[in-house]
Parts: sequence; C-alpha cells; structure tokens
Amino acid sequence: MSALRLLTHPLGREVTGGVVKTSLNRFSAQCTSVAARKLSTHMSCQKCLTLDNLNPNIKVMEYAVRGPLVIRAAEIEKELKEGKKKPFKEVVRANIGDCHAVGQIPITFIRHVLALCAYPELLKDPKFPEDAKAHARTILQGCRGGSVGSYSDSPGIEIIRRHVAEYITRRDGIPANFEDVMLSDGASNAIKVILKLLICECEGKKPGVLIPIPQYPLYSASLAEFDMEQIGYYLDEDSNWSLKTEELERAISVGKTKSTPRAIVVINPGNPTGQVLERKNIEDIIKFAHKHNLFLLADEVYQDNVYAPGSAFHSFKKVLIEMGAPYNEMELASFMSCSKGYMGECGIRGGYSEVINLEPEVKKMLNKCISAMLCPNTIGQATIDCVVNPPKEGDPSYATFIKEKQGVLSSLAERARMVTETFNSVEGMSCNTVQGAMYAFPRIHLPQKAIDKAKSLNQDPSVFYAFQLLEETGICIVPGSGFGQVEGTYHFRTTILPQPEQLKSMLKTFKTFHQKFVQEYK
Amino acid sequence: MSALRLLTHPLGREVTGGVVKTSLNRFSAQCTSVAARKLSTHMSCQKCLTLDNLNPNIKVMEYAVRGPLVIRAAEIEKELKEGKKKPFKEVVRANIGDCHAVGQIPITFIRHVLALCAYPELLKDPKFPEDAKAHARTILQGCRGGSVGSYSDSPGIEIIRRHVAEYITRRDGIPANFEDVMLSDGASNAIKVILKLLICECEGKKPGVLIPIPQYPLYSASLAEFDMEQIGYYLDEDSNWSLKTEELERAISVGKTKSTPRAIVVINPGNPTGQVLERKNIEDIIKFAHKHNLFLLADEVYQDNVYAPGSAFHSFKKVLIEMGAPYNEMELASFMSCSKGYMGECGIRGGYSEVINLEPEVKKMLNKCISAMLCPNTIGQATIDCVVNPPKEGDPSYATFIKEKQGVLSSLAERARMVTETFNSVEGMSCNTVQGAMYAFPRIHLPQKAIDKAKSLNQDPSVFYAFQLLEETGICIVPGSGFGQVEGTYHFRTTILPQPEQLKSMLKTFKTFHQKFVQEYK
Repeated sequence: MSALRLLTHPLGREVTGGVVKTSLNRFSAQCTSVAARKLSTHMSCQKCLTLDNLNPNIKVMEYAVRGPLVIRAAEIEKELKEGKKKPFKEVVRANIGDCHAVGQIPITFIRHVLALCAYPELLKDPKFPEDAKAHARTILQGCRGGSVGSYSDSPGIEIIRRHVAEYITRRDGIPANFEDVMLSDGASNAIKVILKLLICECEGKKPGVLIPIPQYPLYSASLAEFDMEQIGYYLDEDSNWSLKTEELERAISVGKTKSTPRAIVVINPGNPTGQVLERKNIEDIIKFAHKHNLFLLADEVYQDNVYAPGSAFHSFKKVLIEMGAPYNEMELASFMSCSKGYMGECGIRGGYSEVINLEPEVKKMLNKCISAMLCPNTIGQATIDCVVNPPKEGDPSYATFIKEKQGVLSSLAERARMVTETFNSVEGMSCNTVQGAMYAFPRIHLPQKAIDKAKSLNQDPSVFYAFQLLEETGICIVPGSGFGQVEGTYHFRTTILPQPEQLKSMLKTFKTFHQKFVQEYK
Repeated sequence: MSALRLLTHPLGREVTGGVVKTSLNRFSAQCTSVAARKLSTHMSCQKCLTLDNLNPNIKVMEYAVRGPLVIRAAEIEKELKEGKKKPFKEVVRANIGDCHAVGQIPITFIRHVLALCAYPELLKDPKFPEDAKAHARTILQGCRGGSVGSYSDSPGIEIIRRHVAEYITRRDGIPANFEDVMLSDGASNAIKVILKLLICECEGKKPGVLIPIPQYPLYSASLAEFDMEQIGYYLDEDSNWSLKTEELERAISVGKTKSTPRAIVVINPGNPTGQVLERKNIEDIIKFAHKHNLFLLADEVYQDNVYAPGSAFHSFKKVLIEMGAPYNEMELASFMSCSKGYMGECGIRGGYSEVINLEPEVKKMLNKCISAMLCPNTIGQATIDCVVNPPKEGDPSYATFIKEKQGVLSSLAERARMVTETFNSVEGMSCNTVQGAMYAFPRIHLPQKAIDKAKSLNQDPSVFYAFQLLEETGICIVPGSGFGQVEGTYHFRTTILPQPEQLKSMLKTFKTFHQKFVQEYK
C-alpha cells in the first residue's frame, strides 16, 4: 500500500508514517493497459476499479442537464450562503424542468390521495374530501394486504393500469388495452427498458436508434450506456423545429453505414425545442418508420403542455391507428410521466408507457425483463392514478382541481409567450415559438471573438456563454451542445418555469448580460 | 400484411377479408437468421422486434422469484375467485419477502412522516405527534421548494444522506462519510449500478463476479443482462451455509478460465439461506477478496433480521476497517433497503448504499452514471430517513415505535424457530437453522421415481415438486433451482412471513403434502 493511499484514508484521519510498499500481486493481477501498468502519479492501479478498467460506455456517457454547469451552480449557491459577494443574490435554476423547485404548488387532490394511501387512518378524517377517499380506497384495494408497502405486480397495480387504459381511450377515442400498459418510476426507466430490448448485433453491426437533434440527453446517455449507435436527425429550426422526411432519409442512410437502424425516437411536444408536431408531420414520421421497419418510441410526457393557439397534441397511437393498415400494426411505445404537465411531481417518480403491437413472445420477454426490477414505487403509481383519473364534475374536489390545473397551465402559457417574445427582442438572438413543453431553445449569434475565446479554452462556444452567464448573473441554463445543434450554430435551453415575477426579472438580467457579452467580444 | 396479423389486431376487432400481402421490403430489411427469413407459422419476421433479434442477454435472463410458478399462482387465485373448486381456499404466497402483503402492519411512525411529507397541511393537525412533524419538516427543508415533488440530487437528499452516515457510524462505531452514501429506489437499483461500473473486457475475457450458490436471483439476472460471467461459489449446507475459503479458491480458479474475476457478492444475513455469518468468516472473505483484487459487494439488507441466540450482525465495513491495512482501503459497496427489517416497506422502493474507498475519478463516474437516472423517489428517501433516524427515548412516538418494531422482530424470531423445527420434523426433509433474514431453504430428499417423473417432463425435480405443492395445497414457494443448488440435491425457499396462525396451518398442510408426495413416488 502506498503512502498516497493512506493519506486519502476514507475516515479522513491523517495518517503519517505509513510504510510505502506496493502489493505487486494486486498490481499485476488485472491491469492490462500499458498506461495502467505504469506507476502513474495517482496510483490508480492499486484499486480494483480504475478509469482504465471501468465500463467504457459509462466513461463516454454525458448527461448535460446535470453536468459541470449544474455542479458549478451548486458551488455558487454554497458560496452565497457563506456570504461571498457576487453580482447577484441567488442562483436561478432554469436548467431543469423541476416545477416545484421553482415555486409551483402541488395539486391538492393528488396530495390528498397520497397522504390517504400512506396513512389510511386519515380515511376517518372528515377534513379529507370523499372523492379523494374513494380514490385512495380503490388504490389500497389494489395493493396486496391493503398496503402501499407491499410489492405490486411488476407492470404495476392492475386497477391503475386499467385507469390508464381508460384515460388513453378517452384521449384518443380509440380503445386501449390495460395489458399494454406498464407503470414505471418516471418515464426514463421505461424508455431504457424498451431501448434495452433492441440491443442486438445484426450482421456485425451495432443497433442504431434515430433521435432528434437537439434531443433530450437521456437518449444520448442511454445509447452510450448500451453501446448503441446514435443516429441524429436534425429538427428544422427554420420551420419551428419540425421534422422533414428528407432529413430523416439522409440521417438513416448515414446511420446504415455504421449500424442497423432499429428504432426512432420522437419527442412531442419537443424537449428542448418546445414545438408541437402537426398531424401531417406525425403521419410522415410513421410512414418513414414503416418503410425502414423501425420501432417507434414516442416521448409524449408533455402531452398536457400545449400553449400556442392553433397547436394541438396528437398522440402517435391515435394517428397510427387512424392511418389504418399496414401502419396500425406497427410496434409503438408511448411514454408519459407525472413529472411534467400541470402536476410537476418530479420527485415522486411516476410514469407509464403504452406498448402496442408487440409479438406475443417479445411481450413475454419484456415482462420478464421488468420483473427483475420488482416493481415501480407504489406512491408514484398512485400519483399516475390521480393524473389519469382526476375528479369529475360534481365531485367535491372538482372545482379546486380544475382551478389549480388551469391556473398552472394558463400561467405556463403566459410564461411561454413572455420567454419567446423577450428572446426575440434581443439583438443577436432568435427563438422559435414555445408551442408546448416547458422549454425554449433560443439561438444565439455569437461574435467571432467569443467563439475564438471559447475554442482557446477548449469549450463549445455555447458552454463558454453559459458559464459566463452563470458566473455573472446566477442564471443556470444548459448549453446547446448538451442537446446537439447544427455545426456552427449556438443555442441554450432555458425552462419557462420560474414564477412570473422571477422569470420577468431573469429575462431582464439575461438581456442585459447578452448585450454586454456581445459588446465585450465585438 | 398477412391475414394472421390482421386477426390479432390490437383493438381486438375481428377483421375479415383482409388482403394477404407481404411487405417484402420490411421483410428483407432486418432479418438475419435463416430461421427468421423463413415464412414461419407465427410470421414473427413482420415485426421489427422478434425473438430472433431481441437482446440475447434478456432472452437468457431468469428471475425465479417472479417466474412461471408465481404466474400460475396468480391464475389459481383468479380461478378461486371465479368459484372453481380446489382442495384449498386460498393461495399462500410464501414465494416472496413481501411483508405487508401477508399481514404485517406498517410502522406507524414511518407512515406518519410519509403522510406529513406528502401533504404538509397536516403539520397543523394536532393528531400527529410532534417528533414525526419535526422529522417531516427536516426532510421538507431538504427538498427544493419544500416539496417532495421536486427532484433531489441524484445521490439523494443531503440531510438524509447525512442521517444515513450517522446511523452507520452508530452501528459500527466507525465514522462514515455522507458523501459515500447514495440513496436509491430499493437496494436492487444500487446493486445494478455498481455491477454496471465493472463491465469491462479484460484480455479478451468477460468480467466475472463471484456470487453465492444458492443466491438471490437478482444477481444471476443482472449478470445475464450485463453479459458478465457468473462465478458460483457454493455455500456449505453442512455447516449452516457458511463460506469456506477453499471453495472460494476452487470457484475463482474455475472462473478464471472463462473470465476476469472482478468482484464478489456476499449476502449476509443470507437470502435464500437464512444464515448469519460469523466475524471470522467475514474476515476470511475479505482476505480472499484482497488476495484476488476483488471489489466487495455486501448485500446487508437483512441487517435488522437476526433471530438466533448467539448470532449477531457484523457489517463488512466494520470488519474491513477494523482489520487495518491493507484491508481497510479495499473498495466495498454495502447495500440496505427499507423493504426488509421490521418495516417491510417493499412497495415504497427506498434503499441506500455506502460505497467506500473508490478512486476519486471512479467516484465521479459513478455520480455521472446515476445522474442520468435523475433521482431516487423522494418518498422512498423519506422512508429510509425514518429507518436510520427513528424516534429516540423521550420522543412522543418512541414507545409505540419500539413496541411495533420489537413486536415484528420477536414474532419473526418465533416464526423462524417454528419453520426450522417443523421442516426438521418431516421425514425426508432437513433444514438449517434460520438464524436471520426472512427465509428457510430446506433440503428435500426426493424418491427416485419423483426425480424420474420430473426429468420426463423436462423439469428440475425441485420445480416439479413446487408445482405439485401449489396445485394441491395453494402454497406458493420458489424451487431451489431458481437459486442454484449442488447437483443432485433439491431444495425450496419459503418465507417465514405468513402471520403465525396462517404459518402454522401452512406448515401442517405442507407436512401432509410432503408425506403424501413421498408415498406416491416411493
């Protein structure tokens, strides 16, 4: 053992006088790379797990939404707490779609039901409305032993899956089958499970998955983790981030040189881009997927977040079924979450997916695959139940529920407008209309000097810009490079979630910063 | 599209007169195996995801605890509901450690805190004790925006991680660092994350992981999913399922022919075997792991479940640190869950791991890896907080808490005794003392005729036995083959969880069944 290791003793005790001896047995046992065999300065080789022998897929994986910028933001928050002087008073976290963190109030009905499920003694409490109680009783009856503390079936509590199917049926006007519904801890887990099924080398080539650029980094991170080929297709910024079939064709032909394309991911409403796809556009994508025999993954977690006049949410399921044969038999997985919409229950981790048209044998494999993960958390399942089976007219909770829901959604619509307008009013910025979801993805036109400066620091110019913004204003956004952008263009993603007054002030500060930044690097 | 596909229309509509035409483009695009290219009877090739091109690791994965036997048990439950006559009135689910499902009552203090966190209005309710309120307030202060609906940091809410570190410090008498603590959705997720880091081909060989046989099938399932080599070491049934160094050496030398061994898993107290390891045994394992440069994974989720007089839980962390250099610098991950112990909150999905002595660069990779999964569910985190920071003497909840906790644990101890004694009283069965955890793993000595009969059905004799038991008595257990057993020996795992009266009656029925079974195949 080396002195160096002793000095980094896990208990933080200062160890002195440790004998420096190297256990050669341990050394030679496993290290294969030449670099690792060398007595490197940080002695990495004495651990059994080092950067040299760590899962290479994890090494290359990136997750920008929680990347270095966010780590720096947390440091700044600590510095502010410790009284360090900054040109701002607080960090504004516009980097993540985390509604309650920036002041959104939970929906009372949901929290009533969760409290009743967690502590059923409250069913006797007259302060809780009868419909919330009935709701909780139904959920508890679906739990073994009447407790949310028991494991559910791996695809979730049956009655909740049935409620999800009824919700989809109402939404689309097309029957849904509860056996196609799988509950999950948020949408992310379900997305990863479906991607995982598709991992299979084909004619010596990796499996490939088409994802939009810009994209939500869960996809790039998961594809990296699974060693699947990321086939990026560019959304067309000039036509409000729509998908063009020609671009899809270009992307897949490039993708085919390195991989066997197996699936296409579409995020609608868009993250980070905020567009809402038109029905015709969805039909084109379905036809394209059919032509190339691709599994469809429709990330529809923002289905309740549609703001722009004239925009409407069309589910892939509805469009695909209505298109008739042969499209209505295509494999499709659609994802939903309780983290977004008007509820914003991110921390609870609830979600569902509807997976249709699977081969029966494949469905068995899917069920087996999720069974080893035991079950999604039951409180998340209960939350999804509230989302798909909300109070009805005449129920005691109805008026409050509608008021709260519409309050959130109309305020978000107002904020979407405010964000779009403000960014478009800044010279050197342009921003497509935020039609839906919770984000804007404005383009920034940076002076050449700023680009050169960034490159001299080995940073993408959008990263350089975002760090400057954070240090000078406390505003934390995610640079465009974390989502992907057309070469030579620069963007950032901001949420529209800060409460109206804070958002107004943030946008004002942002505008001033941008003007100063451009001036500085002119 | 073929008529067959039209007949299996997802909406269940009967479609007639569909034109049978085969889309050859889609056909030829992806199917590589000769079998798949053929127009097989089930037309599997028309789907983009088939058994032929599904992730091969998922295909071989097994998870016995929720396998075919459990599926059959659910069918039988439905048949009983529909009024079908059976020689029993209900299915007894002794297959899974699902405490609340079989009548265990939740710990009131935990449920108080969860209800308060879910619906903070209850903080004003005088019916809730002040210590539960203080507890909930602390958790809510740790949540952004004061809501469990906001995302936490990926390793969990900081104050809860600090409470976990304090708990470990008290338990072991050795300081723990909160930055080594990572909260998770149950223990399973954390175990998979650590295994995932270790995936790395070395000198053209797969990474290998030593796991006990019999083992908890999460391990075999995860290793199959990750295409890692399972290196089984046999627990010694003749010395109450202890680990022998010679057997570990034998296993690793076999393992090395096919893989690069990288880690060893130890489950203590044992699942499915119910033993509690002695300190000397743990020291031997640590020395073995050090000698072979193995990452230690200590599955210690049953640390509160120790029943036998003279048995005591020793954490790997404590033993390893107390052994001093060089052992105290070994990499170790220890796992804990809120699903077991006296709380049995399986459905809530809360857990934590303490991971010590990682290379700093590796730790960064671990943090990055979990960040893409956003965060463990906050209600599960709150539950872990209650477990590691329970009411103290003098707190208003203390008396009830202790009464409930000790009530569960002493009843479990009584049931452990009852199960051991009963199985040992049956001719042709032998059962090691259930010293801890929640399971017995008795050996059954089957008549040759029964073994032949099972083999004629292409079943492991333990599977055949378990199916017979289920059909004739409604008792659902897991056959030994799901956990692994020495060739030519047969076992089953049963939980000790049914409530005392139900357990007594189950054991009586079981005894009668076994005698009849042996008689039948004599």
